[in-house]
Amino acid sequence: MSSASIPKGTRDFLPQQAAKRNYLFEVLRSVFVKYGYEPIETPAMESLSTLMGKYGEEGDKLIFKILNSGPVIEQIQNSKSEIRISEIVEKALRYDLTVPFARFVVQHQNDITFPFKRYQIQPVWRADKPQKGRYREFYQCDVDVVGSDSLLNEIELIQIIDEVFGLLKIPVTIKINNRKILSGIAEIIEEKEKIVDITVAIDKLSKIGIDGVIKELKEKGISDDAINRLHPILNFSGNSVEKLNMLKHLLSKSETGMKGINELEYIFNIFSSLKLKFSELETDITLARGLNYYTGAIFEVVTKNFPSSICGGGRYDDLTGIFGLKNVSGVGISFGADRIYDVMNEQSLFPEALASSTQVMFTNFGDNEMMYCLPVLIALREKGVKAELYPDCAKMKKQMKYADSKNIPFVVLAGESEINSNSFTLKNMKTGEQSIVSANDLYNYFR
Amino acid sequence: MSSASIPKGTRDFLPQQAAKRNYLFEVLRSVFVKYGYEPIETPAMESLSTLMGKYGEEGDKLIFKILNSGPVIEQIQNSKSEIRISEIVEKALRYDLTVPFARFVVQHQNDITFPFKRYQIQPVWRADKPQKGRYREFYQCDVDVVGSDSLLNEIELIQIIDEVFGLLKIPVTIKINNRKILSGIAEIIEEKEKIVDITVAIDKLSKIGIDGVIKELKEKGISDDAINRLHPILNFSGNSVEKLNMLKHLLSKSETGMKGINELEYIFNIFSSLKLKFSELETDITLARGLNYYTGAIFEVVTKNFPSSICGGGRYDDLTGIFGLKNVSGVGISFGADRIYDVMNEQSLFPEALASSTQVMFTNFGDNEMMYCLPVLIALREKGVKAELYPDCAKMKKQMKYADSKNIPFVVLAGESEINSNSFTLKNMKTGEQSIVSANDLYNYFR
Repeated sequence: MSSASIPKGTRDFLPQQAAKRNYLFEVLRSVFVKYGYEPIETPAMESLSTLMGKYGEEGDKLIFKILNSGPVIEQIQNSKSEIRISEIVEKALRYDLTVPFARFVVQHQNDITFPFKRYQIQPVWRADKPQKGRYREFYQCDVDVVGSDSLLNEIELIQIIDEVFGLLKIPVTIKINNRKILSGIAEIIEEKEKIVDITVAIDKLSKIGIDGVIKELKEKGISDDAINRLHPILNFSGNSVEKLNMLKHLLSKSETGMKGINELEYIFNIFSSLKLKFSELETDITLARGLNYYTGAIFEVVTKNFPSSICGGGRYDDLTGIFGLKNVSGVGISFGADRIYDVMNEQSLFPEALASSTQVMFTNFGDNEMMYCLPVLIALREKGVKAELYPDCAKMKKQMKYADSKNIPFVVLAGESEINSNSFTLKNMKTGEQSIVSANDLYNYFR
Repeated sequence: MSSASIPKGTRDFLPQQAAKRNYLFEVLRSVFVKYGYEPIETPAMESLSTLMGKYGEEGDKLIFKILNSGPVIEQIQNSKSEIRISEIVEKALRYDLTVPFARFVVQHQNDITFPFKRYQIQPVWRADKPQKGRYREFYQCDVDVVGSDSLLNEIELIQIIDEVFGLLKIPVTIKINNRKILSGIAEIIEEKEKIVDITVAIDKLSKIGIDGVIKELKEKGISDDAINRLHPILNFSGNSVEKLNMLKHLLSKSETGMKGINELEYIFNIFSSLKLKFSELETDITLARGLNYYTGAIFEVVTKNFPSSICGGGRYDDLTGIFGLKNVSGVGISFGADRIYDVMNEQSLFPEALASSTQVMFTNFGDNEMMYCLPVLIALREKGVKAELYPDCAKMKKQMKYADSKNIPFVVLAGESEINSNSFTLKNMKTGEQSIVSANDLYNYFR
């Protein structure tokens, strides 16, 4: 007998959880579509060569690899020379939606219209050590536009973030920075070559603190002089305007740095006239985001009530280059569905109506009674009412328990006396109230 | 450089295709919910032991296996004894939704309410040889109820089929048979032990013809006498009532067979009073369905215009038994989303409105013009209008081409003269008509 369990780090979703997730995806979808983004889907499996080398050495290990069909074990055992992984594995599960999207854009470049605005809501898989809030299968919800370097795209993405979290009722701060500013800083402290090490270290600031970052910078061979100059920048407190002024002084000699400041200022100016409805926009010089493909604006959205990063993204100038299509700039954000779900669950932000779906259940007292109810049930469904008839002629108590556990708000009872008077008993499951009604009453009530 | 391609047998879905698929899933979902079915989701990966041995020897080979993390190749090469697949593979991609559902029911038996009515719309993976209409990744849309042996469930599933294909405008015939009738036939022709071979052979009738079936039956060792008695049954033509009468005579001595006839008759009687709205219900004695877990009613839905099976299912009395939960009867059907999609595409059955999503696009003539449009754009979106602003100040022709290719029905132009007169030019992209309107006109027009 097989045991009833699932691989660690994966999850089943019971009806209530699935309904909540569907609600979340539906809200995201409705906002994406309102801004002109269109859906695409890519296969769960990509060629191994599409994924390998795109997420760093550590990432390569975390990619789930699918064994080739056929006698693979024999192939390895009979081989006289060393076997490489690519000889027994051709396909792997996608690790994120960004690399498959870049592959998609290049593959279908003649079938899509640029600027190409797409959204994609699909699961990804990572062989990470499972722990609280970290799963081996989880959903990403990505919105990207490629083929346009206009800052209007950044502005729209910020509006999308604002609208999504407004609808979901999660108060958030949208942190924004610009990779060009980080490059400018690296230039000014005379460590331009070490920009990757510097961003990777700064990215960990909130986790390991300023001392941890300095320790890591030292380990990476950044000079004490550079670190001393970097320290006050990372420590600088003030509002967004003060931060930008400080940076303007600091980076006046770095062309790249000044470009980053101008971009950031442009976005802030727009939002001084077009106020965000729900969230706050904040410059965060210490926001770095580890991924190396970012080249311009970078975003991170954190919840106000407790610090959790639930959305992030940025601009990348050459993501499709790895698949042979050069000079296509893009910008995008990714909503972390699982973290958002957890936040909403903890703060009871899901609408109550999701708990129930069926509006009315007919009880089942036998074949005659069933045949009496069936035409009314069918008519109700034709009017769009979600309705069900308990399938078995079970004990009343069992049928009521079923309606209760499914949170069905109304139950219709129809026994001999109802049939004789051509009526139905309608029971309100919340109040316990009962009333005798006609079929017509039922149609009117539930319409 | 990585090449931009995907594994054979898998597909990307471009925006128009994805929108059509979402429409199809949405129709299915809306009907399932109306009948009281609730959504669940299971992980893409199941434990290898959950899947192996459930789909026959051939099925085992078609399961996509996920290589364990770590130095697996070294593990095989260093092993002195024979390595089994289960030593290097713990997880595999689900092959269908039925076995994971059975596993789910057993695992969560204390958290769900029986009768448990669930639907599930998720992809499955099979290492089949890819060919036209057959993919290695495809969606299944399953509706099942477990924990009730009432025939009302069969009746509701038939109603669901009728409603789904009515909404999708695909004329279909719903073929129905009963495994107990097939068992009865095997009993009467004195080949009770060979019931599996007989159903597997009969299942191929439409593909290989009566001669092919007889050949296969002979190969499986069914006696000539039995085959001679089976032949006229498979060849019998007549309407459902005539077929049932013929079977009643034939199977009068088989208790199982008569039970099957009674079940079938019960369902037919119900539908003589509750007419189906859109489809036809037909008894097909030659309908066998290869899967061995079926024990009662079996269904198959074929399109009327050209023969394609697009939905099927049946009753199973012990599916959860393999995971340790005995005596739970269930019945379910599975909609083949990819075949339905193909049928709808070929017959142009998708609503035209799906081709476009954005309702109106604002052109972009520069920063000033953009700032003039932005508040109106935002106000439109607040009213729920799907609207976008072309992100770059590109040539007029390029912007129009973009709107055209996205099938956007209206374009708003706003240049210097519009700004000076505080107006907008609204262009109907179908007729080419242009009119000068105010912001308020726009709100009213698109509301």
